Amino acid sequence: MNDEIVLGTQECVRSLSYVGDALYVIGGKWKLRVIIALREGNTRFNEIQRAVEGISARVLSNELKELELNGFVRRVVHTQSPVVVEYQVTTYADTLKDVLHALSDWGQIHRDKIRKGW
Amino acid sequence: MNDEIVLGTQECVRSLSYVGDALYVIGGKWKLRVIIALREGNTRFNEIQRAVEGISARVLSNELKELELNGFVRRVVHTQSPVVVEYQVTTYADTLKDVLHALSDWGQIHRDKIRKGW
Repeated sequence: MNDEIVLGTQECVRSLSYVGDALYVIGGKWKLRVIIALREGNTRFNEIQRAVEGISARVLSNELKELELNGFVRRVVHTQSPVVVEYQVTTYADTLKDVLHALSDWGQIHRDKIRKGW
Repeated sequence: MNDEIVLGTQECVRSLSYVGDALYVIGGKWKLRVIIALREGNTRFNEIQRAVEGISARVLSNELKELELNGFVRRVVHTQSPVVVEYQVTTYADTLKDVLHALSDWGQIHRDKIRKGW
């Protein structure tokens, strides 16, 4: 019964298979946090690492590479001296805005729930 | 500039900190997939394991425990003979519906993008 209310139609249940696709690309502990840090204006590696609490340099380096492969991040090398490397979010990352908003809303619901007790 | 369009206001940027909360609870490789499998009507451990492709029994057992602790899943023991254990999603899991829909929509966008090339 609840499923009927929440999912609407059988079609909707099927469409949830896309969730698997989405989680494959942006799931995991860090990817969305790194994207958020970039959105907030952090472009240098060290800035990003400071903004994403708890991430190691090795893991951040890997996450940035994967985000670049998936078209979310552009690595820009300024060949001045000293060389400056910047990471920028692409416009493709904008397609994630509904996901980020939904997660943000839900995080707020969950925080309230924890505050009020179960 | 893009950030302005996507995030709207500074308030919205702050609210993204809730995303961290959300990912802490439902992030990771399996949690949402397990919830989806439960939603689709799988209630027995083996059914769930079959529905969530690639999950090991040990990992599924841990994920179900964490989901139970966070109020998404109820473990029901029917003390007949043989004892039957069922896992049910709670109504609290319904609060995730917008997150699931947003992820589903985005998964579709991303699949189209990959199909069409970059």
